[in-house]
Amino acid sequence: MDSARNQIPGFSAIEQAANNLEGHIIKTPLLESELLNEEIGGRLLIKPEVLQKTASFKIRGAFNKILSIPSRIRSRGVVAFSSGNHAQAVATSARYLGIPATIIMPENAPELKINNTLGYGASVLLYNPDTQDRELIAEELAEKKGLSLIRPYDDYHIIAGQGTVGYEIFSQAKNLNLDPSAVVVPCGGGGLIAGTAIALKHFSPEIEVWSAEPENFNDTKRSLEQGTRLKNNNTIKSICDSILTPTPGKLTFEINSNLLTGGVDVTDAEVKSAMLSAFRHFKLVVEPGGAVALSAILSGKIPIKGRTIIAILSGGNVDMALYSKIMNESF
Amino acid sequence: MDSARNQIPGFSAIEQAANNLEGHIIKTPLLESELLNEEIGGRLLIKPEVLQKTASFKIRGAFNKILSIPSRIRSRGVVAFSSGNHAQAVATSARYLGIPATIIMPENAPELKINNTLGYGASVLLYNPDTQDRELIAEELAEKKGLSLIRPYDDYHIIAGQGTVGYEIFSQAKNLNLDPSAVVVPCGGGGLIAGTAIALKHFSPEIEVWSAEPENFNDTKRSLEQGTRLKNNNTIKSICDSILTPTPGKLTFEINSNLLTGGVDVTDAEVKSAMLSAFRHFKLVVEPGGAVALSAILSGKIPIKGRTIIAILSGGNVDMALYSKIMNESF
Repeated sequence: MDSARNQIPGFSAIEQAANNLEGHIIKTPLLESELLNEEIGGRLLIKPEVLQKTASFKIRGAFNKILSIPSRIRSRGVVAFSSGNHAQAVATSARYLGIPATIIMPENAPELKINNTLGYGASVLLYNPDTQDRELIAEELAEKKGLSLIRPYDDYHIIAGQGTVGYEIFSQAKNLNLDPSAVVVPCGGGGLIAGTAIALKHFSPEIEVWSAEPENFNDTKRSLEQGTRLKNNNTIKSICDSILTPTPGKLTFEINSNLLTGGVDVTDAEVKSAMLSAFRHFKLVVEPGGAVALSAILSGKIPIKGRTIIAILSGGNVDMALYSKIMNESF
Repeated sequence: MDSARNQIPGFSAIEQAANNLEGHIIKTPLLESELLNEEIGGRLLIKPEVLQKTASFKIRGAFNKILSIPSRIRSRGVVAFSSGNHAQAVATSARYLGIPATIIMPENAPELKINNTLGYGASVLLYNPDTQDRELIAEELAEKKGLSLIRPYDDYHIIAGQGTVGYEIFSQAKNLNLDPSAVVVPCGGGGLIAGTAIALKHFSPEIEVWSAEPENFNDTKRSLEQGTRLKNNNTIKSICDSILTPTPGKLTFEINSNLLTGGVDVTDAEVKSAMLSAFRHFKLVVEPGGAVALSAILSGKIPIKGRTIIAILSGGNVDMALYSKIMNESF
């Protein structure tokens, strides 16, 4: 039913996605702080997808994907499994397109995220993460009710949609007369960075594209180094909930292993410090997973002295209690 | 030397300011939260000047004003008195234009604000607020050294510069096919709302423009009601440091008494609640004074049910310690 799903999108698929998304999403600006630039001795620009609808970049891929489904099939509805940003993105995109959405969420998901997903108009189906497989539930439901399953990253149209971030970065950098030497991207399953790399490399083959991940969830970094998909040890924890994936996507890794310059990883302490810098210098609330690229630069792991670098802040859905705790720890 | 200073700018002065500022400032987007809109039963858009350079709208007026000074005089430098957002705006604008800036700040100003002002390249002159008059110091220094004094609001070019916020709001609302019934604006000396009202009323004479102020610093609200400039009781305190002015400006009140629909005031508790809503729904850090317009709507003082209203978030320069305290109080 969806034979294109496993193909690698080219630049034209991203251009098409940008057209599809026009008027439905926020073109987030490129921002910089002159005080921070002086401090670090380089020019750092951020692409704040925390200002995007549903407060993460995920709506770009979700909307583009749902729109790609033939309307006769699409009208039956969509299903997705996610406890976080992808859930809200699929729910909102479905509502824009006037179709029903079912989101499969763990029964221990934070009430706020369940309520937000309901608030965006979706039905929520809770499962027991200790005994049930969410992907299996989703596939069965899709099969039984004729729903389209919207996967979070390993999909042609999802990657093309997320690639519009890179597409926008290029044109905005050009308008500002910038010549960035690198773009750093938070990386979970790898959809955002894969699409972004396709767009950026189309325009400037020399530009460096770096993945940023949490320490211990650095599967993309290690996989790039080894040239094959490796897994994380899932007994370890990190505060970067939105980008904790077990292993790189099949399709995304095929793209990323070709296009990325490399990967870096950051500690939770470095992530917290970057979140506070985003507060101070950009007046933005960034979730832990959304701050890893900024963190990779501010920690010095990606040197910026004398260079112009762009960091994507991929999302802002962080509980106030956690945020407050991070602030209090810093005093 | 500056005969135009006390004239009321027309719409063309704002258009000119928009041209002057092109490429030097951020065109902040209009943003909205669908979850918040459902909660309040209306459509609320925000204009987040917290994302502006130096994190407040003040650079619009300061840059436009400094640019208006003939270059022979301008090159001698500028002087301003301010402990906050205007200081940073004048310092940054002077740096863009390659001229020296001296900022007169109270010796008890927060170290962060003094350091930021120095960081933007200005000289800082400290005075004793208990025994010295900052305006007098500035005027004497301007006279003695041939510097241009950049006043915070009661000035033709300052008002025209701040009016570019209204100019942008109109064109952005049009692009989004919005027909807002009201715009609500944080009000201290009244420069931002005066310029914004001139721009908005030019395009749509029917639109309501409301000032928002802190309770007890509601001089514009009371002055509008009485038709004459009234003072605040300056023994009372408020957390809204950036908009605590003793009385409306002469020039700004002449404009505002003609164009504004009215004024509302909000309590510190309502301001804190709006700051937390900005965190939750917009992922933005807003300073207390910058949140009064949002607060006026969310508190119900300006009814939004069934209407489309735009609130300006005028600045984001809030200390992390205060912000953290406000969060902690809310749990």
